[in-house]
Amino acid sequence: MIYKSSLALLTDLYELTMAYGYWKLGMMDREAVFTLFFRKRPFGGNYALAAGLETAIEFIKNFRFEKSDLDYLESLTSPNGEPLFEKGFLDYLSTFTFNCDIFAMPEGTPVFPYEPLILVRGPILQAQLLESALLNIVNFQTLIATKAARICASAEEDEVIEFGLRRAQGIDGAFSGTRATFVGGCQSTSNVIAGKYFGIPVKGTHAHSWIMAFDREEEAFDAYTDVLPDNCIYLVDTYDTVEGVKKAIKVAQKKKTKMLGVRLDSGDLAQLSIKIRKLLDDAGFEDAKIMASNELDELIIRDLKQQGAKINVWGVGTNLITATDQPALDGVYKLAAIQNEKGEWVYKLKISEQLVKTTNPGILQVRRFYDREKKALCDMLYDMEMGCEKNLELIDPLDPTRRKQIDSGEGRDLLIPIFKRGKQVYTSPSLQEIQANTKKELETLDPHYRRFLNPHIYFVGLEKGVYDLKMRLIDDIKGHP
Amino acid sequence: MIYKSSLALLTDLYELTMAYGYWKLGMMDREAVFTLFFRKRPFGGNYALAAGLETAIEFIKNFRFEKSDLDYLESLTSPNGEPLFEKGFLDYLSTFTFNCDIFAMPEGTPVFPYEPLILVRGPILQAQLLESALLNIVNFQTLIATKAARICASAEEDEVIEFGLRRAQGIDGAFSGTRATFVGGCQSTSNVIAGKYFGIPVKGTHAHSWIMAFDREEEAFDAYTDVLPDNCIYLVDTYDTVEGVKKAIKVAQKKKTKMLGVRLDSGDLAQLSIKIRKLLDDAGFEDAKIMASNELDELIIRDLKQQGAKINVWGVGTNLITATDQPALDGVYKLAAIQNEKGEWVYKLKISEQLVKTTNPGILQVRRFYDREKKALCDMLYDMEMGCEKNLELIDPLDPTRRKQIDSGEGRDLLIPIFKRGKQVYTSPSLQEIQANTKKELETLDPHYRRFLNPHIYFVGLEKGVYDLKMRLIDDIKGHP
Repeated sequence: MIYKSSLALLTDLYELTMAYGYWKLGMMDREAVFTLFFRKRPFGGNYALAAGLETAIEFIKNFRFEKSDLDYLESLTSPNGEPLFEKGFLDYLSTFTFNCDIFAMPEGTPVFPYEPLILVRGPILQAQLLESALLNIVNFQTLIATKAARICASAEEDEVIEFGLRRAQGIDGAFSGTRATFVGGCQSTSNVIAGKYFGIPVKGTHAHSWIMAFDREEEAFDAYTDVLPDNCIYLVDTYDTVEGVKKAIKVAQKKKTKMLGVRLDSGDLAQLSIKIRKLLDDAGFEDAKIMASNELDELIIRDLKQQGAKINVWGVGTNLITATDQPALDGVYKLAAIQNEKGEWVYKLKISEQLVKTTNPGILQVRRFYDREKKALCDMLYDMEMGCEKNLELIDPLDPTRRKQIDSGEGRDLLIPIFKRGKQVYTSPSLQEIQANTKKELETLDPHYRRFLNPHIYFVGLEKGVYDLKMRLIDDIKGHP
Repeated sequence: MIYKSSLALLTDLYELTMAYGYWKLGMMDREAVFTLFFRKRPFGGNYALAAGLETAIEFIKNFRFEKSDLDYLESLTSPNGEPLFEKGFLDYLSTFTFNCDIFAMPEGTPVFPYEPLILVRGPILQAQLLESALLNIVNFQTLIATKAARICASAEEDEVIEFGLRRAQGIDGAFSGTRATFVGGCQSTSNVIAGKYFGIPVKGTHAHSWIMAFDREEEAFDAYTDVLPDNCIYLVDTYDTVEGVKKAIKVAQKKKTKMLGVRLDSGDLAQLSIKIRKLLDDAGFEDAKIMASNELDELIIRDLKQQGAKINVWGVGTNLITATDQPALDGVYKLAAIQNEKGEWVYKLKISEQLVKTTNPGILQVRRFYDREKKALCDMLYDMEMGCEKNLELIDPLDPTRRKQIDSGEGRDLLIPIFKRGKQVYTSPSLQEIQANTKKELETLDPHYRRFLNPHIYFVGLEKGVYDLKMRLIDDIKGHP
């Protein structure tokens, strides 16, 4: 953690007023289930990549209300000037410890709309207090990991370096953002603090300002080669790109330096890289790489490759670290079940004018079915308490005419236990292991599911028992017979 | 600061390799000038609102390399496995203190393309090391403050509450982001940690989960009224919005509670709010407010108002906190001048195929001229060392046929000293004072400059001496006679 204290106040005020309400009413220990899921497939693609779990675990482990937090809460007033919270509630918060069960998908798991990425089961007051921070952490990292996976797919076997620190949305936009790009498949970053904390390889040589600090470009390359002879990637586009490359070649030949490569940050990257490749090859620098940056994303990289660009390393900044074309995942955190006073589960849903916004009730697990080649076939949402039959019928929650029959109940449950009664039972793998897991997981998805735009839509169905329950609850609420 | 230590490593690696280079070459104390500016007018509007300075000051004041930072840097290697940095350089960093001059625009100042928001003058090594973090902090907060100003303008005199924590890009996306929305004019936030650190008023009541935790909606309103009678804004759209309002009215009448208002989070906000207003008025709750949220931005708010929506309070989340339609400001930090070995200034520019990407050389101050009604007329970029004449001619840097004559040299210099030789000489006003400054500053811009789309473009010109210098430098670089 880079934070000096708990982030317990990283929350919307209504989480605390609701918590206060449950405390006042003596409902605070009523067992409830919340699920975190998104609705809209990001970037017009199909899947998202679950990410941010390790950060969420740290947040929960460090969660406590400190004296200055409690003092601040004590200072809050209602619109009429009365204290918002009773002292007894603040005393309760000061001794607060979590004892929820938390299930989550491991980072790097492809996840589809309406599937819980996280399920929290525990006292309603506690489960409620986690909402805002879990959404903040998981929405952002899942979004960026997904964007990174798309960009890395477009780059094929080339290295992708994350370059977004200067355009990221704030300090953590860069810090957690870089972490998420690594989950999604980026090999390295320019961001040193992310290197320090997450062990991500860091890369960097010099900027235009280095070139401009000298009287002539060649002098700048010369000086750079003297001081960092083992790290020579020359930025060649300060004045004229092709001339810049020629000067870099001259310097590297003169100094007998191993030129690692050149970097382009402007101009037509396809044409320039082809020209430059020839210059480098003719000069005997066949191993020197051509690195490109400048407003890249997965569609531009794919286009450049189709146009024969001779680029080996892609530096991707703004469009990756802010996910420019969709800068937020629409993840929500919804109550799915609550126990009544007798300790029986009452399943809950929020209805809406639109079916897409109606939530799914239940204590939902996600089971993924595979074929013999280990390719993912479809996912089923089923209730952990109700279990599921053999001979399954799955029903698309948004289009009940789309159904799928599964003959065998085999498959893999994607939500795994992270905390049991507040005790951590899962240790996050290293970030390198997570990245490897992403790669393995993405390979289970057929390429037609991974198309950037208009992919084939992966089938996610409700187990028939859950579907029937949902329909019954909707009828109850709407007063249908 | 919410961070437990200095953020000195919040930087791109190339800043450190360049710093190392300057150190190795004995150039580290060469005096240089860098300016931070953006090129593209955000959101298709005209101005941006400078923001983030206080955060930047904190970053600089806390800047130091700690033992763990130096240990990490020591562990870095070149591609061939050799240590990247010599020990002597790390020793130098360990004793590092800033002694730069820093000028900046106060937060809340409207700023236009190519105008320095920040100017750093000092030893090149030091000025270089600030680049990445200054860009990260200032790009993001300036972007969000600008978005907030647009949204608040569309809401006219209504309250705008920032609701974006769950969709913000990471923890600081919410924390600094909320700060920036307040700079831009939002009156309050749901984000408790931003309330604690920045004194921003926090607001919140209950979510759909509160309603769903009870057997019936009316029971949920009833319970809420019992526990928080002074903070009664009822969320009415969990099942059926109009029915929800009727139930809220019934409960408030029964409990003899002052209903502060109702909140809608779905459906057609124009039609619903008109219906609901009538229900509330007919029941004697003329003072109860109608708060709306759900994917709002400045264009939707303006439309809803034009359609007669009876909404008094706007809760704006995703589109504000991530600036969805343009999630990054394209700010850059460029070398503008450096002293040669004799201590004479050498002015610098980076040229490009496109004139828009060619930088402006010089130690540039921004002077804003006003008419007698205190309306802004135009801005001039002039060199602090060269000064400027009376009888000024200003030239648009992108279109030299656009010129403007200023008869008197009067006006106001927008860049003010923040640090002098490393010593802080400016104390940031309170956030409340900054917000008041924003309001005053925006009033100096004629409404046609503030139009959301296709506004009249405010004139920013180079002082003729700077323009001539720029053209000479371009000719020199391109080898024109």
